[in-house]
Amino acid sequence: MKRTLTKDIGAHESEQVTLEGWVDVRRDHGKLVFIDLRDRSGIAQVVFTPKEVAAHEVGQTLRSEWVVRLTGMVKKRPAGMENPNLPNGAYEVSVTAIEVLNEAKTPPFPLDTDGHDVDEQLRLKYRYLDLRRPRMQKNLKLRHAAVRFIREYLSNEGFTEIETPILTKTTPEGARDFLVPSRLQPGKFYALPQSPQQYKQLLMVAGFERYFQIARCFRDEDPRADRAYGEFTQLDLEMSFVTQEDILRLAEDLFTKLAESIFPEKHITKKPWPRLSHTEAVATYGTDKPDLRKDKKDPNELAFSWTIDFPLFTEQSKEDFFHGSGAAKFAPSHHMFTAPHPDDVPLLDTDPTKVRGLQHDMVLNGYEVGGGSIRIHRPEVQEKVFDLIGFNATQKAQFDHMLTAFRHGVPPHGGIAPGIDRLMMVLLGESSIREVMAFPATSSGQIAVMDAPSEATLTQLHELSIKVETGEE
Amino acid sequence: MKRTLTKDIGAHESEQVTLEGWVDVRRDHGKLVFIDLRDRSGIAQVVFTPKEVAAHEVGQTLRSEWVVRLTGMVKKRPAGMENPNLPNGAYEVSVTAIEVLNEAKTPPFPLDTDGHDVDEQLRLKYRYLDLRRPRMQKNLKLRHAAVRFIREYLSNEGFTEIETPILTKTTPEGARDFLVPSRLQPGKFYALPQSPQQYKQLLMVAGFERYFQIARCFRDEDPRADRAYGEFTQLDLEMSFVTQEDILRLAEDLFTKLAESIFPEKHITKKPWPRLSHTEAVATYGTDKPDLRKDKKDPNELAFSWTIDFPLFTEQSKEDFFHGSGAAKFAPSHHMFTAPHPDDVPLLDTDPTKVRGLQHDMVLNGYEVGGGSIRIHRPEVQEKVFDLIGFNATQKAQFDHMLTAFRHGVPPHGGIAPGIDRLMMVLLGESSIREVMAFPATSSGQIAVMDAPSEATLTQLHELSIKVETGEE
Repeated sequence: MKRTLTKDIGAHESEQVTLEGWVDVRRDHGKLVFIDLRDRSGIAQVVFTPKEVAAHEVGQTLRSEWVVRLTGMVKKRPAGMENPNLPNGAYEVSVTAIEVLNEAKTPPFPLDTDGHDVDEQLRLKYRYLDLRRPRMQKNLKLRHAAVRFIREYLSNEGFTEIETPILTKTTPEGARDFLVPSRLQPGKFYALPQSPQQYKQLLMVAGFERYFQIARCFRDEDPRADRAYGEFTQLDLEMSFVTQEDILRLAEDLFTKLAESIFPEKHITKKPWPRLSHTEAVATYGTDKPDLRKDKKDPNELAFSWTIDFPLFTEQSKEDFFHGSGAAKFAPSHHMFTAPHPDDVPLLDTDPTKVRGLQHDMVLNGYEVGGGSIRIHRPEVQEKVFDLIGFNATQKAQFDHMLTAFRHGVPPHGGIAPGIDRLMMVLLGESSIREVMAFPATSSGQIAVMDAPSEATLTQLHELSIKVETGEE
Repeated sequence: MKRTLTKDIGAHESEQVTLEGWVDVRRDHGKLVFIDLRDRSGIAQVVFTPKEVAAHEVGQTLRSEWVVRLTGMVKKRPAGMENPNLPNGAYEVSVTAIEVLNEAKTPPFPLDTDGHDVDEQLRLKYRYLDLRRPRMQKNLKLRHAAVRFIREYLSNEGFTEIETPILTKTTPEGARDFLVPSRLQPGKFYALPQSPQQYKQLLMVAGFERYFQIARCFRDEDPRADRAYGEFTQLDLEMSFVTQEDILRLAEDLFTKLAESIFPEKHITKKPWPRLSHTEAVATYGTDKPDLRKDKKDPNELAFSWTIDFPLFTEQSKEDFFHGSGAAKFAPSHHMFTAPHPDDVPLLDTDPTKVRGLQHDMVLNGYEVGGGSIRIHRPEVQEKVFDLIGFNATQKAQFDHMLTAFRHGVPPHGGIAPGIDRLMMVLLGESSIREVMAFPATSSGQIAVMDAPSEATLTQLHELSIKVETGEE
């Protein structure tokens, strides 16, 4: 018999239906046994009466989280027994037959709470149970809705979503790379992309003009509450023949409409979004990502803003040098492809720290939820920036493909890359980015549910021409 | 001034417009200079007249692939000069001002052909130019349209798209893994997923019931024309409380509608799609992926079919053992999570090679474009299959998380995973999978445009606690 979802039982009054799902709660009232049956659509009350002897007997043995298929008659609940909090709360199903599809051990933690009180390590180990809680179901379903909204908005605006490689090249771009040893080319390594930055610029050279991708990015950096270890997801977006104004306007319209459509209970503090220069933001708020909410206790307030006019360079730190941006005085404050403000190009030769970059950061409630820029599209400017950040010949050679591409007719272009995880964390009012990801890594880089990373066999390592270094020299 | 796309000039007759794009072709007719200006929307004819002295002078210097911004008046072309092959072929733009945004070197190969005659290695090195050719633009844009269609279809059917980890665990699943050394846990390795198989099953345990993902998958296998080296993309789809019939019907409806909507010029040979048992297919056609087209010369014919009733096990080959599926007589013919046909479960104890699996392959024009199955959802059956394929205790321990999950209330479930690259290759009538990917690897695993893989620094390797094995023992 065709399955009915629990949410739909009200449409089948006095009809026989088949439901499938999990036992959410069982309440044994002596003769009558009630269960709340849970499926992806919600919950329905189900009752086992002594008249249906066989089903009643099974009903008495049921435990939470067992998986069942049952058939029964949809009835109005007795007067006074309705549950006004459920859309189908006026109805129940009186069971005539039940089949236990799978039994279940008692979960290691309760699933009917919000889960914040449970040890996170344990939650991640049993993530497939933790994800059953309504909060996590809601978070991942709203994440899907938000990403779907983004895709449809951009597709309707003439953007093409294009996939770029995950197995790519190590380049000194600001963070530590993950490396993948190559079997076919012994001694060489792929790197996982920190972002599709170069590929999206090459797609502009290729003439796509409007590209986006919901892109997985990888950085071997220490995690924070608002930064996941290892991998994260960003909306990667690039446009040709645009100004910074065009990018800001598109992103502002997209995310305003997304918030208003997917989160109708939220309100945006100020439209159009305030724009602050970097200098102004730091002087007024002591940060380049100010929290502009009027009432920080209001969970439904969304204060978007833009920070612009960043300096193109910062003082170089040991970290910059370590990651390969060269032994010079300056490091790119965004990244090395960001274009200088056209008025400031002469300062590149005289006083580089005074040069403003065409960078823009998207800020929400005190979090940087996206960054981008207009890119350099002239090879001679790109080479000058490489020199200023102290690239040596070897480092420059790593970007030969970009400089070569720039000599084949590259349009002016720029983009933005909002972080999906962080954006969803703020929109959902969650305290950690891991609450909006299905299977996040722990802070020590462990994928708890699978117990990864794990040891490889010697055969595997030998095929890849690598050895584990034991530390004994 | 606001930019007009070349395709829209007809709507601006006798108005001034600004166009931006690439010089596709220049034709110098002495006094009059014509260029075809190309942007993402198409091509428009542009004419430089001697009357506009400054613009005319620049017009004479233009070369193919230069990037320009120009302003001019939209006019009807002189009678007899219309181009009926272009939607805007009755119009041209008479230029009053032009700015060269970027010059361009002569491309290393022609861009106005289909490119099949150009050495592929060279095409991939200059992929950002190769992608400018109309065929490649069309391929990637139709790929976007097809994937968008899939996403909207499934979202409307109540599916949730959920991202699963790329940094995950090495498991003996049928092909060779790519490994990623862990910095935080020296001597240990992540593996890139061969598919999200286990994660999607865990999402069924988590109660999502209808999951999909356009998922990147990684296999370190030798490439073929219909298989890319390194990474590929699949529609990963899983459903709970379904039969094989439900999965086949959903996939058949989805891909029939996709083909009819995105490729209206194509026709499907037979609806509903023929279903052949594995035995029948092999006996009749000598293959389990028969090409059922009536006229194999008809480029618009699409012959979809299903192959079902595969044997659950095959004889184990050296390769199976190498990839870790154990030292036994049998190997899974699909994968080790495929459920046996319910009628054949007793045969697991008596004659395993006779057991049919609930596997289904989706076939199009002689290519396997998708495979899937109903999965085992009972831990005792899963353990029996592990034993039959010869798993030792260590190998079983690698799947402890699955067996544990199966003891916490897992619904019956199954799915299918059509390969997006291969499907698009067949739908577009291309001879290689690389023609439907933006930046594919070469057969030696090289990402040509970036020259990856490349060498890592000793510092990087030291941080990851690995050494390159030189071969000198």
